[in-house]
Amino acid sequence: MSRLDGAQSTISMWHEGDYSTHTQGAKDAIDNARDLACEAIAAMDVGGSGKPFHIADYGAADGGTSMDLHRATIAALRGRVPSRTVCITYTDLPRNDYSALFATANGGRPDVTSYRDEHDDIFVYAAATSFFQPIFPPETIDFGFSATAMHWLSSLPCPVSDHIHMAGAHGEELETLRARARADWQDILLARASELKPGGRLMTVNLALADDGRHMGNTGGTNMFDVMNRLWHALVDDGTITAAEYRRTTIPQFYRTPAEFHAPLLDTDGPIRRAGLRLVRAETRFTRCPYAARFAEDGDANRFAATYVPNTRTWSETVFVNALDAERPPAQRRAIVDRYFGSFAELVRFDPEPHAMDYIHECMVMEKAGPGDG
Amino acid sequence: MSRLDGAQSTISMWHEGDYSTHTQGAKDAIDNARDLACEAIAAMDVGGSGKPFHIADYGAADGGTSMDLHRATIAALRGRVPSRTVCITYTDLPRNDYSALFATANGGRPDVTSYRDEHDDIFVYAAATSFFQPIFPPETIDFGFSATAMHWLSSLPCPVSDHIHMAGAHGEELETLRARARADWQDILLARASELKPGGRLMTVNLALADDGRHMGNTGGTNMFDVMNRLWHALVDDGTITAAEYRRTTIPQFYRTPAEFHAPLLDTDGPIRRAGLRLVRAETRFTRCPYAARFAEDGDANRFAATYVPNTRTWSETVFVNALDAERPPAQRRAIVDRYFGSFAELVRFDPEPHAMDYIHECMVMEKAGPGDG
Repeated sequence: MSRLDGAQSTISMWHEGDYSTHTQGAKDAIDNARDLACEAIAAMDVGGSGKPFHIADYGAADGGTSMDLHRATIAALRGRVPSRTVCITYTDLPRNDYSALFATANGGRPDVTSYRDEHDDIFVYAAATSFFQPIFPPETIDFGFSATAMHWLSSLPCPVSDHIHMAGAHGEELETLRARARADWQDILLARASELKPGGRLMTVNLALADDGRHMGNTGGTNMFDVMNRLWHALVDDGTITAAEYRRTTIPQFYRTPAEFHAPLLDTDGPIRRAGLRLVRAETRFTRCPYAARFAEDGDANRFAATYVPNTRTWSETVFVNALDAERPPAQRRAIVDRYFGSFAELVRFDPEPHAMDYIHECMVMEKAGPGDG
Repeated sequence: MSRLDGAQSTISMWHEGDYSTHTQGAKDAIDNARDLACEAIAAMDVGGSGKPFHIADYGAADGGTSMDLHRATIAALRGRVPSRTVCITYTDLPRNDYSALFATANGGRPDVTSYRDEHDDIFVYAAATSFFQPIFPPETIDFGFSATAMHWLSSLPCPVSDHIHMAGAHGEELETLRARARADWQDILLARASELKPGGRLMTVNLALADDGRHMGNTGGTNMFDVMNRLWHALVDDGTITAAEYRRTTIPQFYRTPAEFHAPLLDTDGPIRRAGLRLVRAETRFTRCPYAARFAEDGDANRFAATYVPNTRTWSETVFVNALDAERPPAQRRAIVDRYFGSFAELVRFDPEPHAMDYIHECMVMEKAGPGDG
């Protein structure tokens, strides 16, 4: 359930290690929420009686996109308690590249400066446990963080049969996906509520369906998911893939509305509130697609297509590869998906204006009730 | 500094993931010390006031060889305090395969049964920090464990110019290596002394040079390191490698004597004792080479050569590859090392009797002074 991909993949990502490079927008969205993290730290009792301050980053992929947020968080903490030891544990799915993650976090990557280069007494760990389950013992985490990861569903309860994404789902299929998203969000919050120390905080930056109907890839121009769906269906029309392959191609994500994100935290009799978790602050934020922003400046359609489409590809391609018939040789499946993304890039090159992958995130800060909160 | 390899490798292991399969002997040696681990747990105050019991496995490679020891340790703990949550953190160098490690520990490997399949409330983590440095905050570890890892030196202070291993070193070179081994052992113990909770225990199972002169690969028959040295030098004689390549080929290990292992723990005014660490028990133990043992039963020299030599290769081949001139193409370096291990296997097939890689380990249990110990 990483920022990398969340599909039940049997073929691993083809561009592993390049994740952060390809996801400037995901990093921008996290950086765009640094104020909330620092505000959360400022509001906490961080004395800690000499114990380490424990940060968890859920669904961290290679750790690159959140590096500057953690740098800001640690600086905010150390500004208040200069000597407090920090432990930070990155979590992701078992298939994540943990060596890449450790290289990023421990300062072994030439293109990323780790907070460890600036601060002493920071201990880095990883866990390969899904965030739908408990990852830490009760009351051990001071500050939990997760960005652009929890829109991946624990599993796909049904395909979206006439689209590739919930953004184009309707009727019974949409409601089935919504029910799974609701249950997943409750599981996530219950596990985090247990892990947080009393007074600890959880901050999430999750892809959302905003109240004005906007979502990632659908913020004014063309709807990116409709484009991707149309191009994929064109491969049925020309006989490249079968209708069955098209029908089962579904990116296992759900963009929850702000109300859906908030609901379990506002239900005073519900399990999340009973577990002590309450909503401190929530805000829907917009982050400009960095590739479209650059295109607006330089007008270079080739460059735009060559950056925007590979970005989309990093987190979606395994879904397309795995939807293809298992009896097709791997090279053939790869060739079909190459052709698919090639057609996407061609479309963008030919008519770049309406394309963009702006991000819409619901940013939330939650708090676990402290000893004095009853 | 893992059980896998400790060389300053630029070429990664060719058989990653196969480590445990190729190291039955290393596993046997650990299993052979399970009584000491259970005895250590039995002697500790494991009440813990509801806090998790934290185990560290230093230099754990893929976690396969120590699985049954941790299973026994956890069973011993849970036998005394059934509900106590366990955290276990595996450590190794950055280049270790952490995905393989997590697969082993979390029960995702078909050939290894994880303790997680038998016990609830076990949380698994990894750290990619060398054991020459602190890996955990002060006073956070209940039980530390390390096996067949700490004979790797932090770096090689000089080559053994007329042999491939300290087992054949002499004079100034030997003393230079000995000084590095002494300093490394002190760094290791100081870091562990800090990490242990008061009353916590550290158990090490380290390759040693026994008081009777035996060591791994030199337990009665031929000396394995002399054989390996002779065969490597034969490649100088036939012009395959250069004298300079031979001279710099040095496995960066040191087999300490029991006295060298014990010294810093017996020096009452020294830094290790001042840090609170004391020796509880020490014992030199012998573990039979499983391949030689099977050969003694079945007399199958082909099978013996085909298992014993690849075992040796898993932890030594990077040293040979990296000693070869960097200007040789990788395929050529690989071919030379293939030929080298081929000649080793040929020798064993032709005259199997004297060969064996029996293990000699110094097993030690140490304790961090508790609150009442002054």
